[in-house]
Amino acid sequence: MNVRIVEVGPRDGLQNEKVLLSTHAKTTLIQKLVDSGLKEIEATSFVHPKWVPQLADANELVTGLPAYPDVNYRVLVPNAKGMERVNPSILKEIAIFCSASETHNQKNVNRMREESIADFAKFVPVALEQGLRVRAYLSTVFGCPYEGEISLDQVHNMSERLFGLGVYEISLGDTIGVATPASVKRILGSLLSQFPAEKLAVHFHDTKGMGAANAYQALEMGIQTFDSSIGGLGGCPYAPGASGNLATEDLVYLLQGSGIDTGVDLDQLCRTSQWLEGQLEKTLPSKVLRAHFA
Amino acid sequence: MNVRIVEVGPRDGLQNEKVLLSTHAKTTLIQKLVDSGLKEIEATSFVHPKWVPQLADANELVTGLPAYPDVNYRVLVPNAKGMERVNPSILKEIAIFCSASETHNQKNVNRMREESIADFAKFVPVALEQGLRVRAYLSTVFGCPYEGEISLDQVHNMSERLFGLGVYEISLGDTIGVATPASVKRILGSLLSQFPAEKLAVHFHDTKGMGAANAYQALEMGIQTFDSSIGGLGGCPYAPGASGNLATEDLVYLLQGSGIDTGVDLDQLCRTSQWLEGQLEKTLPSKVLRAHFA
Repeated sequence: MNVRIVEVGPRDGLQNEKVLLSTHAKTTLIQKLVDSGLKEIEATSFVHPKWVPQLADANELVTGLPAYPDVNYRVLVPNAKGMERVNPSILKEIAIFCSASETHNQKNVNRMREESIADFAKFVPVALEQGLRVRAYLSTVFGCPYEGEISLDQVHNMSERLFGLGVYEISLGDTIGVATPASVKRILGSLLSQFPAEKLAVHFHDTKGMGAANAYQALEMGIQTFDSSIGGLGGCPYAPGASGNLATEDLVYLLQGSGIDTGVDLDQLCRTSQWLEGQLEKTLPSKVLRAHFA
Repeated sequence: MNVRIVEVGPRDGLQNEKVLLSTHAKTTLIQKLVDSGLKEIEATSFVHPKWVPQLADANELVTGLPAYPDVNYRVLVPNAKGMERVNPSILKEIAIFCSASETHNQKNVNRMREESIADFAKFVPVALEQGLRVRAYLSTVFGCPYEGEISLDQVHNMSERLFGLGVYEISLGDTIGVATPASVKRILGSLLSQFPAEKLAVHFHDTKGMGAANAYQALEMGIQTFDSSIGGLGGCPYAPGASGNLATEDLVYLLQGSGIDTGVDLDQLCRTSQWLEGQLEKTLPSKVLRAHFA
């Protein structure tokens, strides 16, 4: 079975870290992630530095990304203004995002979902014309910090809108980490009745310790693309109580246990996390990481 | 669906904690666990105090257990010597244990598996005659720190030996926390071809963050009894790298997500963990606990 791991640590992870890393440290991190065997890396975001100071060096970082023919970097592009910063001679892929829940979209990006979609409609066609691949994140699919459970109608509708823009894949986000395997079964099952598994990815947070359980449930349902974050970095500053992404180490251990060759060297990955812990002056939450050096 | 949660924190959890709790503190913990809605509690062990100083007060603790008609306490009885301490007018259930792996059994209790079984054969019939229920733990079912993977033959054989003694249930232990849902599917699946689901329980450790995923896999296969530990306390002093049990809070969250009424008040359970953190002067690993007070 062919499984893709999308490493989102340098973007979704770092954006919530208080210790600001230098561009050199970030480039070193990305190099180490590549050396560990990861092929898909979300490198940064072209968000306004006012909102995410940690990613203020996005232009410089992207220019210095270590190039490999089989490694795919992407950058989050929140709006048309961000799209102006994309150089298609360097980047081959961008990612856009909006929420399944109206309130979360407003709190997160200060506009209605329809306004987000209208803005995407301005620049996604441009990106596609330039030969870029476009991925979409749909947040709060499994629950919203403000609205609670989101109706399946809304999740289906927002997915249709995003696919309508021409994105090749939607990553379904459990933004606040409230999903359980049972809710994954219900919500993902419903989406799979409308969209093929190859066009859906899952993006779990481990807030309540369900990250691996949810990923396995999705794997059992045919999902082949999993987002995760080195060491379990991450969260969402506008989602109260949100904690880190599912750790890449834990995901790799889960997948290896299922006999899936991820191409990732778990020891090297754990050494990368250990190095990152030094940079961030904090302990990262991955359990596989903790056990590796116990 | 009727699911039993077996709270093992006061025994499997506390036995590895450095801070020694007073008997009063332990009784208070057990009272709080009962108040949170737990009905099955492993209270302590009649092990020699030399091996587990934390449980040296087992006799006194058992005498002072708060009695409720619907709460079932059990005590681990490692050997015939321990059985002499059982007062059947207070206790209704005991638990015995041995390992699926020869080396782990030797390192853990300093005797061969066959010696363990021969010793059990001396006192289990006595316990049954006294009207006690007897549960068995089978350790290292999903992997041994010394031997690695354990053959299915050995797991089946040891299970037969334990059932042959008249135990009503075997709790299958992932002593060092190496199981993944895929190995649970394989090993538990094999056992379920020989023994009914009602006679098997699962006992997962969260060493590599797979505790909830493994429990859900077992639930999907028809298992109805799950061991867990308040806050995620626990481990095994003779199993290098072993960390805490699956946290009861995380298990309850997982089960509630599946629409199962556990009878446990999650808020009260988290408050109990918070109180216990104060007693032990440490942070407990349960993610649901961390999220609850975030």
